[in-house]
Amino acid sequence: MVLEEVKPKEKFWRVRQTTEHICAPLSPEDYVVQPVVDVSPPKWHLGHTTWFFETFILIPYKKNYQPYDQNFGFIFNSYYESVGERLVRTNRGNLTRPALKEVMTYRQYVDEHMDSLLEDEVPEEVFNLLQLGLQHEQQHQELLFYDIKYILGHNPLLPAYLKQMNKQSLDAAEVKESDFLKIEEGVYQIGHQKDGFCFDNEKGVHKVFLHEYAIMDRLVTNGEYLQFVEDGGYNNFRFWLSDGWDWVNRESIEAPDYWYKKEGVWYYYSLKGGLQQLDLAAPVTHISYYEADAYAKWKDLRLPTEFEWEVAANIYSQDLNLGNFMESDHCNPTAKKGDNYQFLGDVWEWTSSAYLPYPYYEAPAGAVGEYNGKFMVNQMVLRGGSCATPANHVRTTYRNFFHPHLRWMFSGLRLAKYI
Amino acid sequence: MVLEEVKPKEKFWRVRQTTEHICAPLSPEDYVVQPVVDVSPPKWHLGHTTWFFETFILIPYKKNYQPYDQNFGFIFNSYYESVGERLVRTNRGNLTRPALKEVMTYRQYVDEHMDSLLEDEVPEEVFNLLQLGLQHEQQHQELLFYDIKYILGHNPLLPAYLKQMNKQSLDAAEVKESDFLKIEEGVYQIGHQKDGFCFDNEKGVHKVFLHEYAIMDRLVTNGEYLQFVEDGGYNNFRFWLSDGWDWVNRESIEAPDYWYKKEGVWYYYSLKGGLQQLDLAAPVTHISYYEADAYAKWKDLRLPTEFEWEVAANIYSQDLNLGNFMESDHCNPTAKKGDNYQFLGDVWEWTSSAYLPYPYYEAPAGAVGEYNGKFMVNQMVLRGGSCATPANHVRTTYRNFFHPHLRWMFSGLRLAKYI
Amino acid sequence: MVLEEVKPKEKFWRVRQTTEHICAPLSPEDYVVQPVVDVSPPKWHLGHTTWFFETFILIPYKKNYQPYDQNFGFIFNSYYESVGERLVRTNRGNLTRPALKEVMTYRQYVDEHMDSLLEDEVPEEVFNLLQLGLQHEQQHQELLFYDIKYILGHNPLLPAYLKQMNKQSLDAAEVKESDFLKIEEGVYQIGHQKDGFCFDNEKGVHKVFLHEYAIMDRLVTNGEYLQFVEDGGYNNFRFWLSDGWDWVNRESIEAPDYWYKKEGVWYYYSLKGGLQQLDLAAPVTHISYYEADAYAKWKDLRLPTEFEWEVAANIYSQDLNLGNFMESDHCNPTAKKGDNYQFLGDVWEWTSSAYLPYPYYEAPAGAVGEYNGKFMVNQMVLRGGSCATPANHVRTTYRNFFHPHLRWMFSGLRLAKYI
Amino acid sequence: MVLEEVKPKEKFWRVRQTTEHICAPLSPEDYVVQPVVDVSPPKWHLGHTTWFFETFILIPYKKNYQPYDQNFGFIFNSYYESVGERLVRTNRGNLTRPALKEVMTYRQYVDEHMDSLLEDEVPEEVFNLLQLGLQHEQQHQELLFYDIKYILGHNPLLPAYLKQMNKQSLDAAEVKESDFLKIEEGVYQIGHQKDGFCFDNEKGVHKVFLHEYAIMDRLVTNGEYLQFVEDGGYNNFRFWLSDGWDWVNRESIEAPDYWYKKEGVWYYYSLKGGLQQLDLAAPVTHISYYEADAYAKWKDLRLPTEFEWEVAANIYSQDLNLGNFMESDHCNPTAKKGDNYQFLGDVWEWTSSAYLPYPYYEAPAGAVGEYNGKFMVNQMVLRGGSCATPANHVRTTYRNFFHPHLRWMFSGLRLAKYI
Repeated sequence: MVLEEVKPKEKFWRVRQTTEHICAPLSPEDYVVQPVVDVSPPKWHLGHTTWFFETFILIPYKKNYQPYDQNFGFIFNSYYESVGERLVRTNRGNLTRPALKEVMTYRQYVDEHMDSLLEDEVPEEVFNLLQLGLQHEQQHQELLFYDIKYILGHNPLLPAYLKQMNKQSLDAAEVKESDFLKIEEGVYQIGHQKDGFCFDNEKGVHKVFLHEYAIMDRLVTNGEYLQFVEDGGYNNFRFWLSDGWDWVNRESIEAPDYWYKKEGVWYYYSLKGGLQQLDLAAPVTHISYYEADAYAKWKDLRLPTEFEWEVAANIYSQDLNLGNFMESDHCNPTAKKGDNYQFLGDVWEWTSSAYLPYPYYEAPAGAVGEYNGKFMVNQMVLRGGSCATPANHVRTTYRNFFHPHLRWMFSGLRLAKYI
Repeated sequence: MVLEEVKPKEKFWRVRQTTEHICAPLSPEDYVVQPVVDVSPPKWHLGHTTWFFETFILIPYKKNYQPYDQNFGFIFNSYYESVGERLVRTNRGNLTRPALKEVMTYRQYVDEHMDSLLEDEVPEEVFNLLQLGLQHEQQHQELLFYDIKYILGHNPLLPAYLKQMNKQSLDAAEVKESDFLKIEEGVYQIGHQKDGFCFDNEKGVHKVFLHEYAIMDRLVTNGEYLQFVEDGGYNNFRFWLSDGWDWVNRESIEAPDYWYKKEGVWYYYSLKGGLQQLDLAAPVTHISYYEADAYAKWKDLRLPTEFEWEVAANIYSQDLNLGNFMESDHCNPTAKKGDNYQFLGDVWEWTSSAYLPYPYYEAPAGAVGEYNGKFMVNQMVLRGGSCATPANHVRTTYRNFFHPHLRWMFSGLRLAKYI
Repeated sequence: MVLEEVKPKEKFWRVRQTTEHICAPLSPEDYVVQPVVDVSPPKWHLGHTTWFFETFILIPYKKNYQPYDQNFGFIFNSYYESVGERLVRTNRGNLTRPALKEVMTYRQYVDEHMDSLLEDEVPEEVFNLLQLGLQHEQQHQELLFYDIKYILGHNPLLPAYLKQMNKQSLDAAEVKESDFLKIEEGVYQIGHQKDGFCFDNEKGVHKVFLHEYAIMDRLVTNGEYLQFVEDGGYNNFRFWLSDGWDWVNRESIEAPDYWYKKEGVWYYYSLKGGLQQLDLAAPVTHISYYEADAYAKWKDLRLPTEFEWEVAANIYSQDLNLGNFMESDHCNPTAKKGDNYQFLGDVWEWTSSAYLPYPYYEAPAGAVGEYNGKFMVNQMVLRGGSCATPANHVRTTYRNFFHPHLRWMFSGLRLAKYI
Repeated sequence: MVLEEVKPKEKFWRVRQTTEHICAPLSPEDYVVQPVVDVSPPKWHLGHTTWFFETFILIPYKKNYQPYDQNFGFIFNSYYESVGERLVRTNRGNLTRPALKEVMTYRQYVDEHMDSLLEDEVPEEVFNLLQLGLQHEQQHQELLFYDIKYILGHNPLLPAYLKQMNKQSLDAAEVKESDFLKIEEGVYQIGHQKDGFCFDNEKGVHKVFLHEYAIMDRLVTNGEYLQFVEDGGYNNFRFWLSDGWDWVNRESIEAPDYWYKKEGVWYYYSLKGGLQQLDLAAPVTHISYYEADAYAKWKDLRLPTEFEWEVAANIYSQDLNLGNFMESDHCNPTAKKGDNYQFLGDVWEWTSSAYLPYPYYEAPAGAVGEYNGKFMVNQMVLRGGSCATPANHVRTTYRNFFHPHLRWMFSGLRLAKYI
């Protein structure tokens, strides 16, 4: 599906409705809390994505547009620094007002004005902002899945997000042995070179030299990771980066997030099924960079760099018929399939590359220039996309990034080695 | 109004319904947040007061009673330490589930079982626990007002709790000059000696010797306190206790809570009217002990001890026809009236007494013994009751207590001196 | 020993030399560190006590006096707020300069100027400041013992302060059974009424009414306290104030400070002997208020109020021939003696009274007014004096005070009850 | 100077004596404090470098060697995790004992045993450990300069480290205009390929592809950096990485460390001269990565990667006749010279590369494997060496690394650009 084939207006409505569709199973209270600093309340996502269109398109480009509410500017601004003083300090997780109902009215108000603006041909700069706004909202759709999972999966009642879910049949799990795909040494091209939208951090096409290496043809599974857990991996400093060892001890980390042990049996909290027995054939998820790196050291292997990953994915990844998290049975372990080398759409894969600008990288002018560039320190790159990623974000050049201690996103790993 | 005159069952329903009545103006999201550690989410209050009846009455005394949900025990337990391990750690402000709807079902379930239990005569120990449970719920009614005010009054939109409110006419405010009421030196009796319910911390009737003193016949007003603010009181260490001076600087405190200055004019956030101009004739509220003490030092006077307050209140306070916060215009400044010496029902008055056990104090056996005794350190006593206090809690012997830096409750002050 | 009998100049030199005598056994490095916020480096004590005489006496009263170094004002000021901006922020524990040698030169410089000032009769206000300065320095002598003990007793080498010490013979320990001394109900006089120096917080002589009570005729011993430890007292919330229970868990407290358990045997770090086996007959020391209160609850008794303590001590305490910590064998357990009721000079005894101003209390004008008054919140009163207390500070009206979680001072307890 | 030319024993004594020579100007108290977590007390450096020889050479390889003191193991171990339980928790900055005198005795004891061991030919593994131990001690020599500067330069008295210093004549400063040296695109070899010692993190020689770029032929000067300061660079979020902007605001950063402004004039604290007027021609130092990056953004340029730096330095850096910090006038601004392209020995230069393992990197087995590898996350690489760096550590392949907020080391920058 290519953006340009669909009319902008239609595309706009589809993305906007998907966001609301994702939120539909929530109770009103689920919309408002922020249990840890990295999680945002779903209501805030709904307002913030709307504020983006109002601020960057409607106010500058739509004649006579009246902002819905002057206060919403600082309530729904995420991190753009160009904002005045506030009368009352607060934080996202306490914002019981505006109420959900009012946020939905705000969405409707902005949507109708956008609809009317898109009635006619728009100039290219508006089209570009529209595209960015929709990509931005799709990124927040993915974050919504992370945040909803955190809110429900750390509630003592462990409620499922979708109740009608059929539980997976676990007995079918036969995991394919992993193989290593070889790549020859040489100079490779990195970065987004196709048509279609990409983010600024994928641009700056450039060359890298890679030594010969090999990379696993599938993800590491829960079953494999469990061996690390049961081998005392979390108690042995030898496998850990120094900062990671501090983190493990400070936070009393003993397993991936959402793993719970009851009476000797490991369970896993899943958005779709609630608490269920750990599926040993599924890819391990919700691990931090520190855990991914420690696992690799325990296996006497290593994580791939983001360049190694991209080159391998360009060669081996297949056309995907990516489904939709809400409706499909996506996120099935590729390990079971045994007949392809899926690099895309299962879980985000930690690489050993720090998040840094590509050569020739340039941040765009103005507030949208704050989108990516200013985060290029202290974070690690993840590649591949997860089952919660919008289909048109899943591409081999997409660079996701998180601090190395975070794991509330759908993060996993694949190993590499020199040969 | 004496509890015994009304049938237990009727009393039970009245108290339970009042709690729900207080919450009625909230939006569903208002029920769930905990913006600071001292504030609890309204949904939690609804569940916790219900849990009290279930745990201390229904489970031990009602035949064949089935608890509504085994998980609610640790979700709605406040601080009683006798609780087992939890699978998932969390805190009150993230508990989006159980949803409000389910908490209301829980209330209904427990209420119907209580109703059936109270159908017949109950043994005295059950009657005493019922009384304690109702008093406990009424204390939470007062906390609900504090917490709702904090949630709404620190929201950048500053929404009013009750929208239909008539704003007070400010022009009528003529403040009576304050007088000092004299009390002779001697040995006085302290503690609860009347019939009717009181808390354990009011018992232990005992004697104290008081030197001759005088105490203001009304509360300090906003207008008087504003002079302290404008005289630079918050910038002059001389008026402050050392811990208070640290607090003022660490928290950048410049005025009572809910005071906001816009373009040189002072405003005040009120539950009933939202943001409105500061009423100079009203008693100052939402001040910490440190502020009360600093104001007293600035005036070259002092706060009364809790004993001085109680003796004066016993002599001078008049019969009150206390209204109801939701319906009346209560909380009007007594300063305007000029013809009585109201000690009760306006704002909680900081005393200079630390919260300590009375002579002969004994904590009751069992979990209810944790009710008061274990908090008897590091807190200061407040007396008098506020406009948010249930009428049958407003008595001269009632001992409220808070840490000296807190001010989200309706706290004010009255001065004293030796003569 | 009464201050007035000795010439001011002689008294001055004696106090000043005692301070240096206390520091003499230290290595140069011991003078400079601040391992926790409550401990001050010995070098700082040496400078600060000197600064007091320079600032409050020499600068205002000695003609043509030149301050030793302009920078020493903010380096050696403890907490008096009347100080200007600083070029470089720092804290006490990092002040390697001025070097010890220079601080000693500073002391000498000030001492010689004081000597010359005291050559002649001084006006009464200077005499009063001199007295205050010497009392102040003696308080710092006691703090020096606390701080030196903390610095050495938390060093992994556990070095003794005085190496030549004879270890106590433990076999002699036969502990007298404790008795309870009875006091009749009535109105008693509290506060300092004798001649001689006292601090402002002891003034404000006033009456209190006491109900009949009884108080132990000796201190609680290590042996008695050990039973509490071994009975699981630190693991049972029932004995603890809520803030205390938080403290025990947050800090992983399991016994008094300086108690170390090695292979099942309890040891105690003592200034004079280093690490030695716990003396069961000695009074328990280095306990917080929370521990004292928990122990009392475990015994089903209570701590005395500071008024009960003072009245009992006035009746029962005997003339003391108090020695000197450096030379005598003081701090022997009174429990062994069996024939007196020593209230003074063993360990500071926690009372159940919060530290509050007495009636009629007035802080002196000026900077010395910050001496006591501004600390009158959040602390508890201790009475009696310890073996590290200068003899002329040991009196029945002396009010020591500390936050309830502290225990690096020589603190213990005695129990009371109503009868 | 090549290590192999000198006899091991002689080399050993030289390095050991240099360490003591660096500490000689300190007062005893300077040896013991730890004002911030990144600074270690000089006494600890003296002990820790000694412990290294004792633990890794004498204990395993010297017959009948008796460790000096069993306790020194955990006192002087820095971060090697293989250590048992401790009786007393402490931290480096409180260790007044062992006293300096005893640490010097410990050095002597170990030195004599090393001397005797080195009398004869040693096996290669011992020789390698000796080399590592000496390199390690030299790294600590450099850290000693950082730490001593921090201890003295954050003392309110701002004492100079060496008093006899001639102040630099500032009037001579004529700064050469900077040029950009061009490097062609291509595949370059990275890593240590010469003979002689290098650290494990320099090994793993590998190829990188570099696009054409240009790099400044000298360091950025104080004068140039001052323009950034005076242009409001620290107040404009546009120049800052997001984490950097948080750091600037949280820590109230307004200029490089050791810059002090008095009455409109900028001063700089220098180890050799104490506080002196800012030398505009000298290279800017004591800046964090965030500051280096913000300066580059303000100039519309960028930092070089560590690979660009190494390639340029290999081509352009000249033979150095590096002096010795204690005796020479090293650290003179190369900007004044105008006739060379010095890359080595002035200040450590921030690069835009995160500290990550080179391809084929392998940590050595055993405890020395913890030397470098476990720090390869969350840090940025610096190159070039400073005037405090031992001469034989100054090489184009040496990889230094620090967290991006640190700046107590001698850190500066050089700019780069694509062409």
